Amino acid sequence: MVEILPIRTEVKRGRFDLYESLQEFDYRDDDILVVSSKFVSMSEGAVVNLSRVRVSKKARVLAAKCYMEPKMAELVLRESDHVIRGVPGFLLAIRDGMIAPNAGIDKSNVPKGYAILYPRDPFGTAERLRQKFQTERGIRVGVVIADSRLMPTRIGTTGVAIACAGFEPVEDLRGRRDLFGNVLKYTFKAVADGLATMGVAVMGESDESTPAAVVRGAKVIWSEKKFSWKDMAVSPSQDIYLRGIHRA
Amino acid sequence: MVEILPIRTEVKRGRFDLYESLQEFDYRDDDILVVSSKFVSMSEGAVVNLSRVRVSKKARVLAAKCYMEPKMAELVLRESDHVIRGVPGFLLAIRDGMIAPNAGIDKSNVPKGYAILYPRDPFGTAERLRQKFQTERGIRVGVVIADSRLMPTRIGTTGVAIACAGFEPVEDLRGRRDLFGNVLKYTFKAVADGLATMGVAVMGESDESTPAAVVRGAKVIWSEKKFSWKDMAVSPSQDIYLRGIHRA
Repeated sequence: MVEILPIRTEVKRGRFDLYESLQEFDYRDDDILVVSSKFVSMSEGAVVNLSRVRVSKKARVLAAKCYMEPKMAELVLRESDHVIRGVPGFLLAIRDGMIAPNAGIDKSNVPKGYAILYPRDPFGTAERLRQKFQTERGIRVGVVIADSRLMPTRIGTTGVAIACAGFEPVEDLRGRRDLFGNVLKYTFKAVADGLATMGVAVMGESDESTPAAVVRGAKVIWSEKKFSWKDMAVSPSQDIYLRGIHRA
Repeated sequence: MVEILPIRTEVKRGRFDLYESLQEFDYRDDDILVVSSKFVSMSEGAVVNLSRVRVSKKARVLAAKCYMEPKMAELVLRESDHVIRGVPGFLLAIRDGMIAPNAGIDKSNVPKGYAILYPRDPFGTAERLRQKFQTERGIRVGVVIADSRLMPTRIGTTGVAIACAGFEPVEDLRGRRDLFGNVLKYTFKAVADGLATMGVAVMGESDESTPAAVVRGAKVIWSEKKFSWKDMAVSPSQDIYLRGIHRA
């Protein structure tokens, strides 16, 4: 059995210590802590006063084309590795190998006139959290930093892991046999994204004050290896959805 | 707290009664039963002997271009609404509004030389299962028929709901307020896809004999409305990922 347990906290303002803020919970060995990426950004104080953002010419042109706020376009250009395409209302961008509208920057759950950035070093943060559980509580805890994303052709978002620590984020099932002895050829399992989705399902997107959750009992391959976004991302040229766009 | 409980069954051969095959479990009111789409297809006997498939000229040309088996290309053409594009090894197709490699047809977990099709009427099946729980056991059970899919830029699959019954598959959060009183503008939550991911996470892809799972304690909006794939799908022309492809 797998359990998903919500972790509630008070509303925080300004920077705070992420590990300390999540201590009001009875963690156990082999738990996986899923933390909302926005909560991580908040702990870093990664909140930008939009009135102070200086807009470049490139951002101004892009914003006009996409009917979006020039200051948001500027932030997306600064924070993304690559803008794929503008769409009315936002820019489809890639950051750390992952596709995201507006490079993960948004204006919900922050005061009016502000925007919140993507976490600075999500894999480093996940790894530091994992190590703190090890040293302070003496337990093995996996960590996922989770955001939400759209899937092609679907209405609505599910969870995605922007970083993780403590376990293999993707399991390679190639070479395993199915019920009839056929060898599976193409199957990789996005374990970290699945855990992110579980966590996000109990967190809520609006005013629930539940920035984290624990997944207990999930089967993962534990590992102390340092992972990076490269362990979870395919390059756009290999991506079955994006190939068409890049060819365009 | 949300719990995910695996349901094990024996390996089945030939058609079988889906409802009966899943009765060895202590269901409770408000449980959500997640069933693998492949198990649904098996119950329908939707297994095709590839040696008996007659290949059209169109399929032969497409197969040669994509380095795939002509008989598989033929099945994909027959079973999909629209083939978006061929990619080495498979065809990216749309069936019931949902994008899927090879229109959801595959050759794992069936005997060699056979392929298994997408379920015939997944929303009808989900609704009939829901009603059977109501009439035979007198309990309210939601149903999700789940498959797995790739997300753009990601390695590995997570769950997706190809059909559901008993609850709102997508929750519209527009108009709700966040922690700072800002109105959320673009947020829809893919509730059914989230539940599919939870179920698929405990099912496994290879020889686990776990074709279903129960999600207990999830917050959903219960509804006896009859849903269709249109309640979960955006049209390709509205899709932020596919727009580029269609423009190409």
